[in-house]
Amino acid sequence: MSDERRSWSQKAASPFGEAHIWPSASLLLAYPAYSGTAFVAPCIQSKSEPPKCETFSALSSKITEKVASAVKESGVKEGLCLVNAMHITASVYINDDESGLISDYDKWLEKLAPHEPLSGYRHNRTGEDNGDAHLKRQVMGREVVVAITGGRLDLGPWEQIFYGEFDGRRKKRVLIKIIGE
Amino acid sequence: MSDERRSWSQKAASPFGEAHIWPSASLLLAYPAYSGTAFVAPCIQSKSEPPKCETFSALSSKITEKVASAVKESGVKEGLCLVNAMHITASVYINDDESGLISDYDKWLEKLAPHEPLSGYRHNRTGEDNGDAHLKRQVMGREVVVAITGGRLDLGPWEQIFYGEFDGRRKKRVLIKIIGE
Amino acid sequence: MSDERRSWSQKAASPFGEAHIWPSASLLLAYPAYSGTAFVAPCIQSKSEPPKCETFSALSSKITEKVASAVKESGVKEGLCLVNAMHITASVYINDDESGLISDYDKWLEKLAPHEPLSGYRHNRTGEDNGDAHLKRQVMGREVVVAITGGRLDLGPWEQIFYGEFDGRRKKRVLIKIIGE
Repeated sequence: MSDERRSWSQKAASPFGEAHIWPSASLLLAYPAYSGTAFVAPCIQSKSEPPKCETFSALSSKITEKVASAVKESGVKEGLCLVNAMHITASVYINDDESGLISDYDKWLEKLAPHEPLSGYRHNRTGEDNGDAHLKRQVMGREVVVAITGGRLDLGPWEQIFYGEFDGRRKKRVLIKIIGE
Repeated sequence: MSDERRSWSQKAASPFGEAHIWPSASLLLAYPAYSGTAFVAPCIQSKSEPPKCETFSALSSKITEKVASAVKESGVKEGLCLVNAMHITASVYINDDESGLISDYDKWLEKLAPHEPLSGYRHNRTGEDNGDAHLKRQVMGREVVVAITGGRLDLGPWEQIFYGEFDGRRKKRVLIKIIGE
Repeated sequence: MSDERRSWSQKAASPFGEAHIWPSASLLLAYPAYSGTAFVAPCIQSKSEPPKCETFSALSSKITEKVASAVKESGVKEGLCLVNAMHITASVYINDDESGLISDYDKWLEKLAPHEPLSGYRHNRTGEDNGDAHLKRQVMGREVVVAITGGRLDLGPWEQIFYGEFDGRRKKRVLIKIIGE
């Protein structure tokens, strides 16, 4: 985040207490290797810090705590938090933190939109081989919007926020935008 | 809603008129019995009142009026209204209030993610039998965000908000968060 | 937009600079002819101007520039932008602007929810023949919420906003609601 944007985010006195919108943060997810259609283990780093690999299961990328940290840092008590993949072969979704389920998603999505044959997707004529990943992402969704209540993510008892990666190439980013007061 | 949160929601004078964010409300949906993969008839109750069963068709759970009431109560004239399931085997979605269509969804989702065989889902090894419900929910979505314009939900002519339940166990809640001025 | 709503949207001085919510705008998409289940070429017009057909590919309806114009006009620098179809057989989604991919979506959705046989959908007993379109729309989604940062849509490098039409009858509208400061 640039200094200009940091200064912008300073809280201002207002008739309804401290109120501001938090400039978007982003998580950078670094994929060291291509991994087909599976959910893969990202290394998460902040934009301003050196890469810091974290331990995720090889199949899941739970980011609830990262988002919760951003909410806390923002100081917003009541509002909305948008979390979206910035890439079009990836999803941010909310569901259960259960490894069997994540495996079920992987198998199911492969059935709905098989990676092969590569020739089954006109998109692959561009030289890419990720046509299926663009379809899988639509099933799982691009974004979630979560309520912030009392300064915390207002999640149901089993709701966890996940980043799902269906391609695995390149470094990936997740955008977090917080609005409220 | 606690008294603390109620007091927080009082409207404040501001340079752009009355402006506030409404603390989230939630609808409690009580399921008296397990009902497989079908959309089931919920009883809706407010958190602070005794359960009040309402008459829904056995297959649909239209909640447009409930959300509209929350918008009216909030006093917000221009803004956004988030409505989401707080449970991970359920959806909030917008589509047509037509019983044939709801039946079509039910049949279609069962084809995309069959309830049986139970052994087809690793998630069911946890002792649950709702692996399919976690998948169906992803197709139909977790949440909707609806514009508020002139103090009303800014819906298209045929748009209706539905709660879709794919499991049927336990009491369920729908979160409504309103932000605007 | 009525004069009343225009005047409402005037910017107000506030403790945190210029802050307001922009009344929703809508794009009117005119379909000259029924076109089955394909994504079709819309004519976009503003509500207050005579129809102005624009050249889109026969299969895609990219609306990123339209949304970006609305954001610019709103003056909002940091906030959220909701873009949703106001019709229940259409989607607003974000993905790649690549014609092969759009063709892949079309073929894939037809496989997941075939248009024929018409008798396969109870919804078609109402006299309509668009049962499949209501299902396809759920896969692709109703809406997107995009962050606004520094006065611009905060999109990833390949993210483009599309309107997807699965029915093709009637004039269609896309709602854009911008909130922020």
